[in-house]
Amino acid sequence: MIQASIITIGDELLIGQVIDTNSAWIAQELNKIGVPVIRRLAVGDNWESIWNALDQESIDSNVIIITGGLGPTADDITKPLLCEYFNGKLVTNLEVLQHVEELFKNVFKRPLTERNRNQALVPDCCTTLFNSKGTAPGMLFHKQDKIFISLPGVPIEMKTIMEEKVLPFITETYKLPHIAHRTLVTFGIGESMIADMLVEFESKIPSHIKLAYLPNHGIVRLRLSSNGVNIKEIDDEIDSLFSELKILVNEYLIAETDDPIEKIIGRLLLKNNKTVSTAESCTGGYIAHQITSIEGSSAYFLGSVVAYSNEIKKSMLDVSHYTIENNGAVSEAVVSEMALGILNKTNSDYSIAVSGIMGPGGGSIEKPVGLVWIAVGNKNSIVTKSFHLRFDRYKNIQLTTMNALMMLRDFIINNKME
Amino acid sequence: MIQASIITIGDELLIGQVIDTNSAWIAQELNKIGVPVIRRLAVGDNWESIWNALDQESIDSNVIIITGGLGPTADDITKPLLCEYFNGKLVTNLEVLQHVEELFKNVFKRPLTERNRNQALVPDCCTTLFNSKGTAPGMLFHKQDKIFISLPGVPIEMKTIMEEKVLPFITETYKLPHIAHRTLVTFGIGESMIADMLVEFESKIPSHIKLAYLPNHGIVRLRLSSNGVNIKEIDDEIDSLFSELKILVNEYLIAETDDPIEKIIGRLLLKNNKTVSTAESCTGGYIAHQITSIEGSSAYFLGSVVAYSNEIKKSMLDVSHYTIENNGAVSEAVVSEMALGILNKTNSDYSIAVSGIMGPGGGSIEKPVGLVWIAVGNKNSIVTKSFHLRFDRYKNIQLTTMNALMMLRDFIINNKME
Repeated sequence: MIQASIITIGDELLIGQVIDTNSAWIAQELNKIGVPVIRRLAVGDNWESIWNALDQESIDSNVIIITGGLGPTADDITKPLLCEYFNGKLVTNLEVLQHVEELFKNVFKRPLTERNRNQALVPDCCTTLFNSKGTAPGMLFHKQDKIFISLPGVPIEMKTIMEEKVLPFITETYKLPHIAHRTLVTFGIGESMIADMLVEFESKIPSHIKLAYLPNHGIVRLRLSSNGVNIKEIDDEIDSLFSELKILVNEYLIAETDDPIEKIIGRLLLKNNKTVSTAESCTGGYIAHQITSIEGSSAYFLGSVVAYSNEIKKSMLDVSHYTIENNGAVSEAVVSEMALGILNKTNSDYSIAVSGIMGPGGGSIEKPVGLVWIAVGNKNSIVTKSFHLRFDRYKNIQLTTMNALMMLRDFIINNKME
Repeated sequence: MIQASIITIGDELLIGQVIDTNSAWIAQELNKIGVPVIRRLAVGDNWESIWNALDQESIDSNVIIITGGLGPTADDITKPLLCEYFNGKLVTNLEVLQHVEELFKNVFKRPLTERNRNQALVPDCCTTLFNSKGTAPGMLFHKQDKIFISLPGVPIEMKTIMEEKVLPFITETYKLPHIAHRTLVTFGIGESMIADMLVEFESKIPSHIKLAYLPNHGIVRLRLSSNGVNIKEIDDEIDSLFSELKILVNEYLIAETDDPIEKIIGRLLLKNNKTVSTAESCTGGYIAHQITSIEGSSAYFLGSVVAYSNEIKKSMLDVSHYTIENNGAVSEAVVSEMALGILNKTNSDYSIAVSGIMGPGGGSIEKPVGLVWIAVGNKNSIVTKSFHLRFDRYKNIQLTTMNALMMLRDFIINNKME
């Protein structure tokens, strides 16, 4: 079986200055074509660490993907290191040089320096992987029966080379097994309670199939994974188990695909040909951002008023002065008026409104940090609910958003039945 | 020198279903107390992989932090594995049991199952690290002169145990060197051009001090790192180099601390006692979200209208029907009117307005995907600029936000000088 390791290079990963999103993406793409990733390793801009990582990861893996350390500055040592590791010498690649010259002339509109020109130096022992989105080319090396692929750390450049060059190469080079994943999304039930419901199911799934629990923000995703050579056999078996799983968790099932909640809500609105708008205080636009992160959301999302100040709650959402005075901005009465206000202002079919205290400051004994009121509804009825969140500012904003979207989903579904 | 490795456990990391943010946070915290992280490794829910990782990481590291795999379900094998690895047996920890019972009764308000009760089983060969935020306790093991610390994968639980238990323990146990980082933020210049400006500077910094370039979204952060035993010596040396560095890049310098742009802008507004509001089309609330992700932003952020539909641009931002008809929604004229509209509606001192095509769909020959118009200004003047972004939807939204915030910064600074 062909297996892969991912090595990411850069001191910034070891001091925690950046979060590595490349590895997750690479792992997803390799899994899709039937190459399981067995290890992901991050090392610093350090000659010995990188060298050892190459030695070590090639013991168990056939494909070693390396990202980072290809920039033009002195802390980027991946290229000279790989050149020495594979006994090559650096030579100018004319295609790359021409591309770099063009980029600087037409896109960056900056003078080309010697340092940029050196991006076109490539070890003579590798296959150059053309980088249409940037200056540092990818490189592919062979050593015995293993392949080593070095890619720039800039996500868009890495992704483009992976899609255009690396994935097709791996698919052509190896005879790959079929990997199948099926994921469903549940809401409103804890991980361990689902596990208890699934004891019998888990006991009978064959050993080559795995069931994983992925809890996040009140949602638990269940993922079945399998692999083998016979595509039809693997798919039929996992589909049959997946159908059974869906029935077992039916009460809590909100999606049969591994989609984010904002996509699930978008699909529901689109299917019903309805629109939504939001009135946000404590989430500061995050609900609107989540909804609009989905391509095509303009078909069902009209807009939002982020009413961070009370003045704007009054002037732009028609929340009454007295309602705020009597109940405070974080209250059932205020979110109800906000929800109605944005419905009236935008003429959307549904609305979401939130007001709360996200922390760390701003709490009181009566209204502690983490208190949130959410309202969802349409022009006929508004449903409200309060939450007491216990996390940091960022997570409180995320959880409020998640709960608001889930309340909207329930409202739409219940409303249709009436 | 005390060094650390971080091992994260979970198949979800190897199939790329989740992005690992824990490691970055742990790395940051360890660095702060003087423990450099030399490797970060992710392995699957697989007995042999985890076992080998423990063996391997303890060769070079004195502190091995392990996260994940402590959940209550069958795919979580970290606890039994650690129990066997350190030759222990599982026994019930009464403090943990009582805490789990309380959590289920008072917070989760769900019945306690056998599976949850088992969270209180802890190897008798470890020190239990109480988890005030969840059910799975942390565990601390000793083996020769190495320590192994296992923590739950849920970020808030991991962070709490790290802060309350692990970091104090490491600080007390080891004599740690002083680690110093100094980071500044530049905007408007490429990584390689800065590097060219800094050739002489780089050639003379001593070998125990490193200079790193961290480019992201048009911004390049420069980080000096050093470590040693004499705190004053280390700090003085790095401060002196940092002062020199600031002078060298002065023209492009926007901050002398490693803060996100939204925090830098917030500080600027606060210092000048000014407020801002935003009118967002293509960013869908992301600018407002970024601004409000900073605690205390209500002091300078009033609100936003996310005008995704043209109707809302007209009704809520007073953009004229004819301006949209004649120029299209993505145009200099429309963003100018949006910027003015939100100033009038909110009475803020400054405003930001954006309209663009984030992709992948929605482009035309005249107005391709990636075209964005941004306006910033006050009631006296509005400044506009267009951008042609070349990335995916998410990155286009981020880049638009970054550029809009940078334009606001320039506007505030230039306006003050007038």
